[in-house]
Amino acid sequence: MATSLRSIKSLAPLLDRILVQRVKAEAKTASGIYLPESTVEKLSEAKVLAVGPGGTDKEGRRIEVSVKPGDRVLIPQYGGSPVKVGDEEYHLFRDHELLAKINE
Amino acid sequence: MATSLRSIKSLAPLLDRILVQRVKAEAKTASGIYLPESTVEKLSEAKVLAVGPGGTDKEGRRIEVSVKPGDRVLIPQYGGSPVKVGDEEYHLFRDHELLAKINE
Amino acid sequence: MATSLRSIKSLAPLLDRILVQRVKAEAKTASGIYLPESTVEKLSEAKVLAVGPGGTDKEGRRIEVSVKPGDRVLIPQYGGSPVKVGDEEYHLFRDHELLAKINE
Amino acid sequence: MATSLRSIKSLAPLLDRILVQRVKAEAKTASGIYLPESTVEKLSEAKVLAVGPGGTDKEGRRIEVSVKPGDRVLIPQYGGSPVKVGDEEYHLFRDHELLAKINE
Amino acid sequence: MATSLRSIKSLAPLLDRILVQRVKAEAKTASGIYLPESTVEKLSEAKVLAVGPGGTDKEGRRIEVSVKPGDRVLIPQYGGSPVKVGDEEYHLFRDHELLAKINE
Amino acid sequence: MATSLRSIKSLAPLLDRILVQRVKAEAKTASGIYLPESTVEKLSEAKVLAVGPGGTDKEGRRIEVSVKPGDRVLIPQYGGSPVKVGDEEYHLFRDHELLAKINE
Amino acid sequence: MATSLRSIKSLAPLLDRILVQRVKAEAKTASGIYLPESTVEKLSEAKVLAVGPGGTDKEGRRIEVSVKPGDRVLIPQYGGSPVKVGDEEYHLFRDHELLAKINE
Repeated sequence: MATSLRSIKSLAPLLDRILVQRVKAEAKTASGIYLPESTVEKLSEAKVLAVGPGGTDKEGRRIEVSVKPGDRVLIPQYGGSPVKVGDEEYHLFRDHELLAKINE
Repeated sequence: MATSLRSIKSLAPLLDRILVQRVKAEAKTASGIYLPESTVEKLSEAKVLAVGPGGTDKEGRRIEVSVKPGDRVLIPQYGGSPVKVGDEEYHLFRDHELLAKINE
Repeated sequence: MATSLRSIKSLAPLLDRILVQRVKAEAKTASGIYLPESTVEKLSEAKVLAVGPGGTDKEGRRIEVSVKPGDRVLIPQYGGSPVKVGDEEYHLFRDHELLAKINE
Repeated sequence: MATSLRSIKSLAPLLDRILVQRVKAEAKTASGIYLPESTVEKLSEAKVLAVGPGGTDKEGRRIEVSVKPGDRVLIPQYGGSPVKVGDEEYHLFRDHELLAKINE
Repeated sequence: MATSLRSIKSLAPLLDRILVQRVKAEAKTASGIYLPESTVEKLSEAKVLAVGPGGTDKEGRRIEVSVKPGDRVLIPQYGGSPVKVGDEEYHLFRDHELLAKINE
Repeated sequence: MATSLRSIKSLAPLLDRILVQRVKAEAKTASGIYLPESTVEKLSEAKVLAVGPGGTDKEGRRIEVSVKPGDRVLIPQYGGSPVKVGDEEYHLFRDHELLAKINE
Repeated sequence: MATSLRSIKSLAPLLDRILVQRVKAEAKTASGIYLPESTVEKLSEAKVLAVGPGGTDKEGRRIEVSVKPGDRVLIPQYGGSPVKVGDEEYHLFRDHELLAKINE
């Protein structure tokens, strides 16, 4: 959804939410030909930009989220809340929706 | 939904509910042309006007809400209860439905 | 639903239920013209007539409801159980379904 | 559903179930004309005939039901399990489904 | 569902399951005429044949079931797992699905 | 679903899962005539081949399953996960889905 | 879903997620004839490649997952999140979705 934000950096996720940006696929074939954007498959990799403080358990203690800004993660095919800042699209996921960390 | 309220200030949200008003998009292009309202995309940013006392956990203790009046927040695309006071529209969300705080 | 009750005052809500009556919209325009009832939008404001003793938590303790008779409240657009006494209509809501208190 | 019971008095509700019989609407107009049964609106009032011992909480303690035999109650428009004894129809509700007690 | 069991007595219900057999309606009118089986309404009364040991609560303690073999009970109109032994049909219900005990 | 397993004995159910094989109906009438397989009704009896270690409760303690290998059980009409080893079909059920033990 | 990962080894499952690769069916008949891929039934066996640290219980303690890398497991027919690295497909399951361990 559209926003009037000037920078994505002003977003501080609430509770156990994780702000990510999907990694863009190379719109270029191995032989160097550029492909029109519509033929490039969306990747399920994303970079963590910001994390919430975590939800609280029944005793009121914070449950830390499992990732930190800078982490690369595998996101699920569906779900998440889209956020648009200018022309860029971002997503907010709940911590438990993230599938895996990518160590590469 | 319509109300006969004279001022939105008389609303005190119950439990973990948060009263917000959506930030209005600039109905004006960069070059200064005014746009008819129907072509202006709704923004997912809102200003917090009032917050409830929070829900209670199993021990009867209050769980504080995560935002306070004056905060700017990112709201989800769907959901929330609309409230109309005069010509203005407001929304009530549960605290955990708010996506992020905006620090700008 | 119809009842044979002579007075709404004989209803004592059970558990966390709240008995309310919707505030009627002025069926009169600003210039004093009376409007046929079908054109008057229903308001989401209601007056609390009676409250239940509250539900019980896991330890068997009562959880007090958040409003009291005489309070004015904002009710949700849908839901609640309708009760008819004579020609008047009332509604029963669970405490957590009420949106906000109105202090005016 | 049909039974071969000779008397409704032989039914002892289990757990938090409440056995009620709907109050019959006067099939007679104010001016004393008798109405055919199909034109008489069903009432949402019922008399409590018997109550179960209550469900158990997580510690195995009984949670007392909120009404007692003889009480008059407001029942919801839908739900409940119908029981037929002879030509009479009764209903079993869970305690928390009852809306209000009627003190008249 | 069909079984190769020689006797229903060999069935020992697991957890909180209750094995019952529906009481058969008299296929005979008051004046002594026998009715074809298809015109006889099914009754919601059943006899308890065997009961499971009960489920366990969160502390691992057994939660006793509310009926015992020999009890007559009111069963719900729908639900339960059918079991066929020879030509007879039986049903397994969870304890909390039984509506009432019949004391007659 | 197909597997490349050489023996069903290599399957060790996880958590509270129970591996069973449905008892085959006699494809032979009382008078000794063999019936084509499609006319033989499936039975709801099964033999327990292996059991999982049980799930864990909130304190991390194992909750023992209610049956053991060799037990004969009544299985529900629907549900369970099918496993095929060679031409034989087996099923995995959660412990609480089993209806009764068969003592014969 | 597609990824730009160079190696599946860089994936570290989060919480109670288990990364597996389905065992490929022999695309060859017993007599040595190779079959086109579309006629080869998918197997429900998979090899565990990596496991998450486990979810947390209400006290914040880790609940260990039931399998370890190298284990062979039976996976359910449906569900799981697909991950594609190059031409190979992998799946992420929650620990409790795995049906059985294969000891062969």
